[in-house]
Amino acid sequence: MSESNAIGIGMIGCGTVGGGVAKLLLEQTDLYERRIGKRVELRSVMVRDCDTETASQIVPKSMVTCDAEAFFGTDMDIVIEVAGGAGPIAEFFKRALKEGKHVVTANKALLAKQGPELFAIAHENNASIAFEASCGGGIPFVTALQFGLMANRINVLYGILNGTCNYILSEMTQKGKTYAEALSEAQEKGFAEADPTMDVGGHDTAQKLVILGSLAFGARIEEEQIPCEGIDNLDLADIGFGQELGYDIKLLGIGERVGEDQFSLRVQPCFVHADSMVAQVSGSFNAISVYGHSVGHTMSYGRGAGREPTASAIVSDALNIASGWYPKAFADMKLWSDGHDPINLIDPDDLISRFYIRVNALDQPGVIAEVTKLLGDSGISLTAVIQHEINLGQFVPLAITTHDARQGDVIAALKKIEGLSTIEGSPVCIHIVEEPEG
Amino acid sequence: MSESNAIGIGMIGCGTVGGGVAKLLLEQTDLYERRIGKRVELRSVMVRDCDTETASQIVPKSMVTCDAEAFFGTDMDIVIEVAGGAGPIAEFFKRALKEGKHVVTANKALLAKQGPELFAIAHENNASIAFEASCGGGIPFVTALQFGLMANRINVLYGILNGTCNYILSEMTQKGKTYAEALSEAQEKGFAEADPTMDVGGHDTAQKLVILGSLAFGARIEEEQIPCEGIDNLDLADIGFGQELGYDIKLLGIGERVGEDQFSLRVQPCFVHADSMVAQVSGSFNAISVYGHSVGHTMSYGRGAGREPTASAIVSDALNIASGWYPKAFADMKLWSDGHDPINLIDPDDLISRFYIRVNALDQPGVIAEVTKLLGDSGISLTAVIQHEINLGQFVPLAITTHDARQGDVIAALKKIEGLSTIEGSPVCIHIVEEPEG
Repeated sequence: MSESNAIGIGMIGCGTVGGGVAKLLLEQTDLYERRIGKRVELRSVMVRDCDTETASQIVPKSMVTCDAEAFFGTDMDIVIEVAGGAGPIAEFFKRALKEGKHVVTANKALLAKQGPELFAIAHENNASIAFEASCGGGIPFVTALQFGLMANRINVLYGILNGTCNYILSEMTQKGKTYAEALSEAQEKGFAEADPTMDVGGHDTAQKLVILGSLAFGARIEEEQIPCEGIDNLDLADIGFGQELGYDIKLLGIGERVGEDQFSLRVQPCFVHADSMVAQVSGSFNAISVYGHSVGHTMSYGRGAGREPTASAIVSDALNIASGWYPKAFADMKLWSDGHDPINLIDPDDLISRFYIRVNALDQPGVIAEVTKLLGDSGISLTAVIQHEINLGQFVPLAITTHDARQGDVIAALKKIEGLSTIEGSPVCIHIVEEPEG
Repeated sequence: MSESNAIGIGMIGCGTVGGGVAKLLLEQTDLYERRIGKRVELRSVMVRDCDTETASQIVPKSMVTCDAEAFFGTDMDIVIEVAGGAGPIAEFFKRALKEGKHVVTANKALLAKQGPELFAIAHENNASIAFEASCGGGIPFVTALQFGLMANRINVLYGILNGTCNYILSEMTQKGKTYAEALSEAQEKGFAEADPTMDVGGHDTAQKLVILGSLAFGARIEEEQIPCEGIDNLDLADIGFGQELGYDIKLLGIGERVGEDQFSLRVQPCFVHADSMVAQVSGSFNAISVYGHSVGHTMSYGRGAGREPTASAIVSDALNIASGWYPKAFADMKLWSDGHDPINLIDPDDLISRFYIRVNALDQPGVIAEVTKLLGDSGISLTAVIQHEINLGQFVPLAITTHDARQGDVIAALKKIEGLSTIEGSPVCIHIVEEPEG
């Protein structure tokens, strides 16, 4: 990259986010030149179909191409990839790196799947990859984690990383909507896709946890290693019991150091204390809490998606590359997954956590004793038991919270409870997150 | 700085924070080498008195010196300044820079006063200054603002930047303690100095606002330009009225873009909506909210002081310098106040804000009408009026909130109200912060 001349930028894809990126690059050129001492110039935009893409409304037509050879033939230092997906996009991504071009991306799916390979190609070709937008949208958390918290051993990281899920859970919690009602409202408002599986199933959160966990713990993570539970089976009854007990429900991506170099990773709906910072994050906002051995608790909050917030992260990355410092950091430091050993995970059965359990019990003498005895026999100690005086039928819900218990013991006890003739259906089990001291 | 060899570090001062820094550097050397690919070595610690300092408990005695010549004669690339204060420390600071050594500092007073001069000396000598610890303790916000939000025009920045004040206000709000009670408790717990003026008077917050405002708005700021009101005159009665109206009180450092290139800066106790994120920041925690034109609202939260959190920020800075990228960013980018023009501030009278007003009114017919008429005559429109049915004496408190109003108009109206024979003492006036859309 030449030191004195303008920095050329190419962009692959020009949908919602790409339009936001182009707008920033075209409108704020002078501001950016004042900040980094160089002009950044958007020079080419590659789209699948020159006629139907939104590109033409923002980008001069002369800049738009459908031809990969024309695109890669452009004089450019940085390629911004906002097309999403894998397949041909992964090939363009690699080609850019192999040509020594730096790549800025929001593509969490690609990074979660092929991160180590892509980082290695970048390192081999004196290129760099910047990915602030891949996790937490506009929140400058990847930058903070990579550089601002450098002195820390990270002990715990948990994030509200999916705005769709947080919106749905906020509507269920604050307005008593069912999951189906909240989802269809989110779809109407454009907060949820027509096929919401990636979001509500927790997979989007898991991909972000692959990326953040790898940075936080300095270890290579595969998405398949992360037990992943979505929000699509949540029942309003449990959210109500949670509130009664002082908890709010959040879908969290959690990474936790449980031994010197042993970790637990998981994506699941969790109860968090209603007065904790993470419980205050409502609607489509995201937040990531980190506990470092020196810094203690720090949390970053903001918009996890959307055109402008995502464009903020992408263009900030591009400017940090254009300035020259990010490529140097990427070349010299060892923070990225191509340099990592595989993460050492505990058996999920050995996870220690507090739990919320709810069963539908036959409304007859001795049932509470039966259920709580089975838990006690497994060494699981209880903190609260709630059964209300409302009799909605033959079966009534019985909600229980536990002290710290071994997950495997809880699962085994629940299996026995499910087998009782006085219990209807499967017990519900939700983790309760206790924030670490710090 | 040589690329392959170990990076030498010297430290000026070794009190509470310095001890934390030394501990990290001595204990985590291997972790840091894995991350940045180089060893960082603490080589010399300069203290005022070799016998009485706490240094000896953590740092090998052979490393400690009282002699500036011996200290500066050490082979080192980075000087960490944790002595605080100005005077001789400023001289050491400049000497290090002039010798081409990079400086890491938590010294907000020095940066607020002499920032432009020090940044210029650094730039002239191919050195750099890193100051993550100067604002918000361990929160990696300076890094986020400098680099992660690069693409944004920052429109609003407001911070809870002083843990002592936030602790005192939390105790007053949550436990109904008076200011004097909460302060003396904070002093007992070590959260407040014996002479708390710098903290409770708002001056510490103002110094941090000089540093953050300069980065956010790209303009040079003098501490004297910031109207500064502390928390030492706050009355429990107003905190109570605020809660009744749905507000919590916070001491905020505020920087706000009010025109294309015009700003308002101020430090003052403010009412914030009780359900806003900033209201959730309690005890000695800090938080900084930023509204960028692209990213919208983002907030960073964490411990704003204390040995380990501050050491986290200082050592992270040192590692980013040791890696080599931070000096490159410092040399090439134009983010620092030596390159800035003076900030263009509005006349505080022209500030538009919502206000809370409380007067002690004679309990007789017509007083509310008299007071509200004077406000109405000045074009100030009201949102709420509270007078309780408790009669504690001849005078009863009357609390009023306004729509957006011009500060100068409010001050003028309050002067007239103070002159009424039916009013006792001076009216209380507290700004109400409405979070921007975003």
